[in-house]
Amino acid sequence: MSTELDQPSRQTGWFPFRNGHTDTNNYSVEEAESYELLGDGSLTQSTTKGPRPAYKERSTIDWLLEESAERERTRTLHSRRGLRGALSPTLESARWWFVIVLTGVGIGIAGAWLDVLVKWLGDLREGRCRYGFFYNQVACCSGLDPGEVCTEWQSWSQYLHVRSILGQSVLQSFVYIALAIAFAGSSAILVVTYAPYAFHTGIPEIKAILKGYVFDQFLSPWTLLIKALGLALAVASGLSLGKEGPLVHVACCMAYLLAKLFGLRNNEIQKRKLLAAAASAGVSVAFGSPIGGVLFGLEELDTFSFSNEGEVMWRGFVTSAIAAMSLQYIDPFGTSKLVLFQVTGFSDTWRAFELIPWFILAAVGGLLGSLLIKMNAAAAVYRRNSILHEWPVLEVVGFSAITAAVSYLVVFLRVQSSELVAQLFQECDPNKGDYHGLCNPTALWENVFLLILTAMTKVLLTTWTFGMMIPAGIFLPTIAIGACLGRAMGLLTQGLQRSHPTAWIFAACPPDPTIPCVSPGFYSVIGAAAMLGGVTRMTLSLVVILFELTGALSHVLPIMISVVVSKWVADALGKEGIYSVWIAMRQYPWLPPDEFRDKGQTAAQIVKPVESLVVIYDEEQTTLKELNTFFEANGYHGYPVVNNDKLLGYIVAEKTKAYIDPLLSDDAASGVQRICTFSKHAAANNPDLVDLSDLIDDTVLQLRKDVPLQLVVNMFQKMNLRHVLFSQGGKLTGMVTKTDVVWLLTEHLPHTGALAEEES
Amino acid sequence: MSTELDQPSRQTGWFPFRNGHTDTNNYSVEEAESYELLGDGSLTQSTTKGPRPAYKERSTIDWLLEESAERERTRTLHSRRGLRGALSPTLESARWWFVIVLTGVGIGIAGAWLDVLVKWLGDLREGRCRYGFFYNQVACCSGLDPGEVCTEWQSWSQYLHVRSILGQSVLQSFVYIALAIAFAGSSAILVVTYAPYAFHTGIPEIKAILKGYVFDQFLSPWTLLIKALGLALAVASGLSLGKEGPLVHVACCMAYLLAKLFGLRNNEIQKRKLLAAAASAGVSVAFGSPIGGVLFGLEELDTFSFSNEGEVMWRGFVTSAIAAMSLQYIDPFGTSKLVLFQVTGFSDTWRAFELIPWFILAAVGGLLGSLLIKMNAAAAVYRRNSILHEWPVLEVVGFSAITAAVSYLVVFLRVQSSELVAQLFQECDPNKGDYHGLCNPTALWENVFLLILTAMTKVLLTTWTFGMMIPAGIFLPTIAIGACLGRAMGLLTQGLQRSHPTAWIFAACPPDPTIPCVSPGFYSVIGAAAMLGGVTRMTLSLVVILFELTGALSHVLPIMISVVVSKWVADALGKEGIYSVWIAMRQYPWLPPDEFRDKGQTAAQIVKPVESLVVIYDEEQTTLKELNTFFEANGYHGYPVVNNDKLLGYIVAEKTKAYIDPLLSDDAASGVQRICTFSKHAAANNPDLVDLSDLIDDTVLQLRKDVPLQLVVNMFQKMNLRHVLFSQGGKLTGMVTKTDVVWLLTEHLPHTGALAEEES
Repeated sequence: MSTELDQPSRQTGWFPFRNGHTDTNNYSVEEAESYELLGDGSLTQSTTKGPRPAYKERSTIDWLLEESAERERTRTLHSRRGLRGALSPTLESARWWFVIVLTGVGIGIAGAWLDVLVKWLGDLREGRCRYGFFYNQVACCSGLDPGEVCTEWQSWSQYLHVRSILGQSVLQSFVYIALAIAFAGSSAILVVTYAPYAFHTGIPEIKAILKGYVFDQFLSPWTLLIKALGLALAVASGLSLGKEGPLVHVACCMAYLLAKLFGLRNNEIQKRKLLAAAASAGVSVAFGSPIGGVLFGLEELDTFSFSNEGEVMWRGFVTSAIAAMSLQYIDPFGTSKLVLFQVTGFSDTWRAFELIPWFILAAVGGLLGSLLIKMNAAAAVYRRNSILHEWPVLEVVGFSAITAAVSYLVVFLRVQSSELVAQLFQECDPNKGDYHGLCNPTALWENVFLLILTAMTKVLLTTWTFGMMIPAGIFLPTIAIGACLGRAMGLLTQGLQRSHPTAWIFAACPPDPTIPCVSPGFYSVIGAAAMLGGVTRMTLSLVVILFELTGALSHVLPIMISVVVSKWVADALGKEGIYSVWIAMRQYPWLPPDEFRDKGQTAAQIVKPVESLVVIYDEEQTTLKELNTFFEANGYHGYPVVNNDKLLGYIVAEKTKAYIDPLLSDDAASGVQRICTFSKHAAANNPDLVDLSDLIDDTVLQLRKDVPLQLVVNMFQKMNLRHVLFSQGGKLTGMVTKTDVVWLLTEHLPHTGALAEEES
Repeated sequence: MSTELDQPSRQTGWFPFRNGHTDTNNYSVEEAESYELLGDGSLTQSTTKGPRPAYKERSTIDWLLEESAERERTRTLHSRRGLRGALSPTLESARWWFVIVLTGVGIGIAGAWLDVLVKWLGDLREGRCRYGFFYNQVACCSGLDPGEVCTEWQSWSQYLHVRSILGQSVLQSFVYIALAIAFAGSSAILVVTYAPYAFHTGIPEIKAILKGYVFDQFLSPWTLLIKALGLALAVASGLSLGKEGPLVHVACCMAYLLAKLFGLRNNEIQKRKLLAAAASAGVSVAFGSPIGGVLFGLEELDTFSFSNEGEVMWRGFVTSAIAAMSLQYIDPFGTSKLVLFQVTGFSDTWRAFELIPWFILAAVGGLLGSLLIKMNAAAAVYRRNSILHEWPVLEVVGFSAITAAVSYLVVFLRVQSSELVAQLFQECDPNKGDYHGLCNPTALWENVFLLILTAMTKVLLTTWTFGMMIPAGIFLPTIAIGACLGRAMGLLTQGLQRSHPTAWIFAACPPDPTIPCVSPGFYSVIGAAAMLGGVTRMTLSLVVILFELTGALSHVLPIMISVVVSKWVADALGKEGIYSVWIAMRQYPWLPPDEFRDKGQTAAQIVKPVESLVVIYDEEQTTLKELNTFFEANGYHGYPVVNNDKLLGYIVAEKTKAYIDPLLSDDAASGVQRICTFSKHAAANNPDLVDLSDLIDDTVLQLRKDVPLQLVVNMFQKMNLRHVLFSQGGKLTGMVTKTDVVWLLTEHLPHTGALAEEES
């Protein structure tokens, strides 16, 4: 990663960089908990039990504590007297829904605006509109009768009146490549200079944030602006990337901004519920697939882990619907269709023999998807450790030049990926004209070769592009690769059927040769599904998204089968999808939701023993000042408190500091050094002691060390825990934090931590 | 419920019947745990730590213990030496997938077979085929050109050569009503005599079973057969019920049977994962909606609570796809379409002004849905406490007579609900002919009146039917009610637009009056969505199911909006959907997944104090025989073990008994009364003691009493706990079981426990 990226984090503290495979029993408590380091963050509004802790960037929220704070707040809200008490819960809820509706509308508008911008920038690489610079090709040529030639749209050579064919091609290719470099370069400069977190897809980070990672800079208004603008430039530059993932990031930034504007940021869990809804809406807009968006939230973002999953799903559902409606209302393509790729023309039924090519496609998709993940991870690690890490803009400029040059040579690479996919998804229709000879039955082998070449080139380009310092999604390139392969397979099958119409295997085809039997366009959809299954390892959401794209009820089953087989094949080569791999590489504190099976170990395997913990011993007659000094010196998020060998509980440092701060001032004024205690019993016996027992966090779980490891992992996964204390017979025996569990679950991955940001 | 229903349970022990609103702090431990009573159930194959407990009917499984047993088993499987060790995990997995595929195929076949049977029985009420008794009307009339009159199908009066019009109507109505009574009556007799658990929809029970309730009789082969047969008869009788819910039950029975046949029953959690997949497949077949089926599993059955949600979803997905494929392959309707209701003909776009009638429809749907739930619950409670409870068959016969008589008078009630819905969902097409005058524009008011009358009659009929001693689903009647109301609203809107084509509000309509602007068929879909939303309170799955039915991408948004609004309206009148209400009435140990917010209470609110628990005091020099006697005398599932005031843990009675049984025989043979201990420490000091410390269940969680109540409830919900021990400083302070939490969450419902089976 670039030095620019490191800049903002330098001021805030770092996620720990762990070298390779540290023995889990062996690392020090400092290392394991250094990401919990808390500085002097400002404290939020006080509640009855003292202020809640503000979380520092790069820490993990304490889910149970946040829930308890929310409980407290709701109770206060409901217990108010009079009209205000009766109305404030309603008002609160109304404000929430207002923000949700606004978020939905905002995302719809942002999506539409991006579409328009990308189309215009992309067309600019080919030419311009005669009567206005800011028209894209479609808008420029609108209003023509079918068949009429559009004379208003001029290629650059026409515009500059270059006559010679050589001059024309040189000029056209020069503008094409130069603008690609300019777009990609400015996108990279924007990202590197103003918002380093706007690079990449954003989905790994959002997954981590939804699970409790604190990463507010990732959601800043600045990131929002740069990501949106940079995304439009990056997509228009013709690099092998898509807008889907980044659009989810943009949606989350927007929700975060709106929540801040309307004062809804008071609870970290509430914030995450809003983000989950916004992420669904982002997918909804990206694909024009509102149900797919909600499912994406459920499946990939695992929003079911919230304590009220129904409510979260529900809000995601409403936000998705509103976003899709706004997009449809704005209608950026003038087609009054929601979806990006209109899929039409393929026959209503499919035949059993087609399952054979589809199975092959699915297996190829799974293999290639798995390969793409591995190559992409290797490329990312190579980039990090090479000189390229220091020159991110140069890398983008250079690679966009390569991409543009290569793309200009292959006709299917030259066009925007979305246009290519839209054409590949469509059946050949004699009335509609041929797309670059794709429908020419005599050019079968040429087409198949071209399609496979395109797919392979795209695999290589995508491998490198996904991870450069520009906003980049992996969905669209994956779809394009799959669609090319699928179309190639479809053409082959069609050719085979046409040349052997009487073979027994094709007996199900209609005998009339003029009625098409095989629909190569649908093979593209199958190929796209297979490739997506291999890369993302999603299942349901993919099927729903592709179903919403195609709208073909009768074709749901083949899509399902292809996703199933592709996932099976890919899983055999490695269980993790591309987002999980990136999360592990960047070492975010995110727990995979997969079932963890221990091999008979107990929690003792990962428990940090009490000897290596920093513990407050309550019997030691600590003065308030000493306690404060202790907090300053250690700087952890919290500490177990032990009195005479008995575990009293866990206290959160920030909360305790905020409580004792005024007492300390009193002490300083009066000159008395008061002694404090966390034991109710001691406080009752000795009224001179300052009773801090109310500060003990009653939401921290205590377990015994001989609990099965699997159960502990399961609890961290299901309850979103931050830490668990271990005790035996009332005595503290150790502690496990989320980091320990994340490490346990990810250490086997090849590149775990390879992209974690180093401490400088 | 009938006395017949009570019979089989009488031998097995009862779910406790709680009278009204017992104070949660006040009930005795016996009452709270009586459903955990374990008899001398046979024990399963022993594992390294002794045999696992077999669960008695009507108990709740110990989720954590089952998971630990599964862990143990997997480990054993993997640790085997040689080829067998290498192959057995693969074989195990292959067997699972084999059962899943088989289940999918089986459900598809069952669904198709039911469709055929129902169609034939239903048509039999009108007439018979000339050339074969076992043909239904469609099969009988197949092969005709369009427009040709089918002479092969004869009404009963034609068959019996009755000429006079009076004679014809009397004969037709007599056969119609008599066969309705015969079908419904035989269905009720089958259910009451052979499989009382085959009554009703089955979804509340499946929800409870998936969450850990043990109810194997509900899944027996006998229930499978009777439910399938009884369902076909009940649907054909024309009672106001659907096949969707019962089909889910049938699917689960089938999966259970197949799992038993292929020896897969060894783990209760694995069994439940299979059932979850089967349930999805059931919905998939019932609606021809494979994605909707999976979502139904996620949303309504809450299958996300499994420890490996991805795997569960995945299996559900595969099973659904296979079931839908089998159904499509068998093609019972000869249409080569998956779906029950083909929705066609409505225009591609909708106009903004249509949102007004849709909002009204959605609100009406929500209101009526909520009303239907309340009326249905009241009817069920009334039935239970009245004389009808003793005469279930008579009730069914009587009510089917009333239904048939009323239905015969109203044309839209006379046809099968599914046919009515299919017609209502379809746009008027001049080429297709008019369905009972529905498309006659001059009969607008008559049609609206008839539709509303049909809807209201159906509400009343459904209210009573859903809960009688026959298999009955609530989905189809709800859809029919909504479709009638929607069509009525659509006709009104259409009429208004036709009479005022120039009004500003209809400005969006095409000026040409021959082009239809309002599509009343689609209003039916909206109405059905609204009604379903009000009754079931599902969101996503409904939208997906209706989307898969209609296939109209452009119309997803109106469906979403209608479900949203309907749920809002209905939620304002009571949060629970019809299945939750029934679960509460029958008092199954099922925890609603909704977020529970305490009002500042801690766990102490529901903890049964240590004084009222039956505890094993380890220091008391207990002999093995005494321990055995203690188990026999108390008969609970398990007991906390305390040694010198220190909580050692929790032991499961069955497991301990199985371990000490051979030791007892030794004692009896040798005449020595050995003393046992659960403390490792004591056993180490005194080698004469029998060391039982390994039997202490290491998966039981221990909490402190001052933990917030919300956290405890949340843990029970997320971790599927059975019980939690409470301790403070190593001393046992109390215990909370699932029953306590269920009671806490359901006691506010009006009819909680009203239908629980009483102890006799």
